[in-house]
This record gives sequence, structure tokens and C-alpha cells, in this order.
Amino acid sequence: MAKKYTTTHEVAYYECDVNQTMTFPSMLGVVIKTSEEQSDKLGRGSEFVSNFGLTWVITNYQISITRLPKVGEVVNVTTQAREYNKYFCYRNFWIHDQDGNELVMIESVFVLMDLKNRKMSSVIEEIIEPYESEKIKKIKRAPKFESIQEGAVVPYRVRFYDIDSNQHVNNAMYFNWMIDVLGYDFLTSHVPVFVNIRFDKEVEYGNTIDSHYEIITLEEQVETRHEIRIGELLCCEATIQWKKK
Amino acid sequence: MAKKYTTTHEVAYYECDVNQTMTFPSMLGVVIKTSEEQSDKLGRGSEFVSNFGLTWVITNYQISITRLPKVGEVVNVTTQAREYNKYFCYRNFWIHDQDGNELVMIESVFVLMDLKNRKMSSVIEEIIEPYESEKIKKIKRAPKFESIQEGAVVPYRVRFYDIDSNQHVNNAMYFNWMIDVLGYDFLTSHVPVFVNIRFDKEVEYGNTIDSHYEIITLEEQVETRHEIRIGELLCCEATIQWKKK
Repeated sequence: MAKKYTTTHEVAYYECDVNQTMTFPSMLGVVIKTSEEQSDKLGRGSEFVSNFGLTWVITNYQISITRLPKVGEVVNVTTQAREYNKYFCYRNFWIHDQDGNELVMIESVFVLMDLKNRKMSSVIEEIIEPYESEKIKKIKRAPKFESIQEGAVVPYRVRFYDIDSNQHVNNAMYFNWMIDVLGYDFLTSHVPVFVNIRFDKEVEYGNTIDSHYEIITLEEQVETRHEIRIGELLCCEATIQWKKK
Repeated sequence: MAKKYTTTHEVAYYECDVNQTMTFPSMLGVVIKTSEEQSDKLGRGSEFVSNFGLTWVITNYQISITRLPKVGEVVNVTTQAREYNKYFCYRNFWIHDQDGNELVMIESVFVLMDLKNRKMSSVIEEIIEPYESEKIKKIKRAPKFESIQEGAVVPYRVRFYDIDSNQHVNNAMYFNWMIDVLGYDFLTSHVPVFVNIRFDKEVEYGNTIDSHYEIITLEEQVETRHEIRIGELLCCEATIQWKKK
């Protein structure tokens, strides 16, 4: 059984939107911090990884939401690097309330990237050994994305505060562009229940991205489809399932 | 002597920019949270204030920076509601490192605003009594602003995540628009030492604001002047003093 690591977090007002619940960028910031803390405690922090000329990059998230954490709520954030194969590491995150109810579950895919040529590296045993993840042969496939048929598009310029210490846009920031296009009325009358997102290409400072989207109303649920593009180049795609409030 | 209240904060990676130091929105978020905690502990939380049909609004900050807090650093955040007169409450914040060195000192002006007509109310003794602030006659004046002579301007649309639970743009968000216009090269070669900012008019969702700015190079220092406007309407003005790295 791979090691689990849990931290406690009190949800601050500035991590929440008008709905008084945590935003996606805040939520992902907090869970990733937990995994960084686990790595530091196991002696596998970013410095250790960069000694191999490598860095961790997240390529996918699947986020299942029972209830979004609320302002002032104290939550437990747990992470576990569960499995890996030749190229991919599968890490889970859970957010629980103080009664032990699962609020959010996140499945993620991490890969090691060469800092120089920015290409994927195979997994290095010495880096991942202390997490005690299970070695598997299978490559897990995330749900496929439906392409946008009749969408709309809003352009965004990458801002200085959108980039992180690696000079690239932090994965969590893509949600700013995807969420914003849906508009105030939609965002205050719907809550997300599931997100499937894939990061294909890094976005840099100075880029202007186009946030393409389409809102598809099914029976009980609403699905929004998203593509972040620089011109024709696809940088990120996502599907979000919502329920009405 | 007015009561002081101190909390501890560990600076997270997502609170920092490429310089590995805290952004202004993050720093202000953390200090304001400390004052909210003090208010809650003293039985003067937002619910108590809203029973009078009022809410706190911040009109000014003067921020003196010795050194910006760094990623991973544990800091102490202290606040004290020092003085008040008929309309204005003067609250200070300090950020100290673990050796007790002052990193940042913030002077702020709070006013009570009527939730219905959004006009300023006079200070109500029952609300501020437990802070034990000193009553003064004097109205403190912040340094004046020089108007922009030959500036440039960049428009920004207010995003969903820019607004807070009161449906208005959180004060700290103005810094996104003011900082971003200065550009990557400037922001990675200069560090801020002093900020004087005044909030004149609330910005709402759906607004497009213009971020006007001018960079003035003095001998040792660089000063940037900022105005956030909606058309002709001045919403916020600021002066930031920088030193070269």
C-alpha cells in the first residue's frame, strides 16, 4: 500500500468566489502543496528531482466533487502516489470534512520532464521508491474529450501573476480562463460535479490564449466543453459536468 | 494601548510569483484574514457589523517593504486597530520573520459603509469598543498622488474570480492590473519598497477597467504611478516605489 500523507487546511475567504466555495485554482494549489510536503518529508523534494535534470509535470486531472469546501471550513487534504508504469505516475488526492465525509476526490497523472529539452523522461526508481507506489503494466486512459461543435471564444492575455516559478503558466490557472467564459449567471446557478482536464502544451508569459467553450444541456445535467488554444495549437482541453443549484 | 493579534502563516508556492516572493494580492489576503480573525475573537465579526446594516471597507493602504516574504517561509502576521476618529479607523499590520525582523508594515484606513446606500457611516462605538483603539480628533492624510503625465494604458475585463462574496472586486485584485502592465523584465529586475494606494470607487463584475501607468526613473529609485479607471471615472490610484535588484 502506497504511503498516504494528510494535512489540514482552513479555507480562507480569498480562496473562494461569490458562491462562498473554493475556486478550482485555490483547491488545486492546496492539494499540490500537500504532495510537495509529502515529497519533502520523504527526501524527494524538487531539489532532489532537479539533480536528475528533471521536474514533475501534471498532465491530467479527474476531479469528482460531492461538495465544494466552504469559507472558514477546516478540511483534511490527503494524497497518495498509488501506482506507476514506465512513464506515468498516478497520484490521488482527497479532501474530507471534519466528519470524515469525502468532499472531493482527484485522480492525477504526473510525468517527469527533462528540464533542458522539456521532453518526457521515463520514471526513475530512485525518485519514486520512498512513496511505495505499486508498479503496474497498464496505461490508464482518462475519458475521451468530445470536440467543440458550435462554441464561442474569448481571448485572454497571460498575466504576470499567472506564471509560476518555472516561468510557465501554473496548471491551476487554466481554470481562470475556462470558468470565466461561462459568466456570472451560469456560475451562480450551477455547481460542478466532475471535471476531466488534460494539459497538452505549456503556455508562457506573453502568449494570448483563446478560451473556446460550448455549453451542452442534457436532461438533468449540464456539460461544458473547453479548449484553450494559441491560434490553432491546442494547449488544454476539459469537460466539466454541472448540476443545477 | 489597542489590542494586538498575531497569527502564523507559511508562505505557499501559489502565493508567490516568479521572483519566489509573495504577490501583493496574496499578502493582503493573508493580513486581512488576520484582522477578520481578531474581529471574530472579539465578537465583532462581519455578522455583528451587518446587524447594523454596515460593512467594513478599506480606503487606503501604505505598505512599507523591507523584504518580501519568500516561498516556504514561516511569518508572523500582527494587526492592531490603533486609532479612530468620527469616520476613519486606522489599523496597522506587520509581517515579521522568525527572527523577529520586520519584513512589511502596512498602515490602512477602514470605514464603515451602509450596505443599502453604499455611503460612509460614522464610526459606531459598540462595534469598535473591544479593540481598545485610541480616539483621536485628527484626520490622518496619506501622501498625495501625482497625476500621470505621459502614461500608457492597458484594458482588463473583470473576471469571475476577481469578485468576492460582496459581488465587488476585492481590493487586493487591483494589484493584478497595476502590476501586470509593468511587464516581465521590469518585475524581475525591481523590488517594491513602498506602496501608497487609495480606493475611490468600487469596480463590479462586467466592468472593463483601464490600467493607466507611468514609469518615472529617479536617481537611485524608480517610481511607478497607477490609475485604474472606468472610462473617465477614477476607481483607484497608486504610487509604487521600487529599487533595482
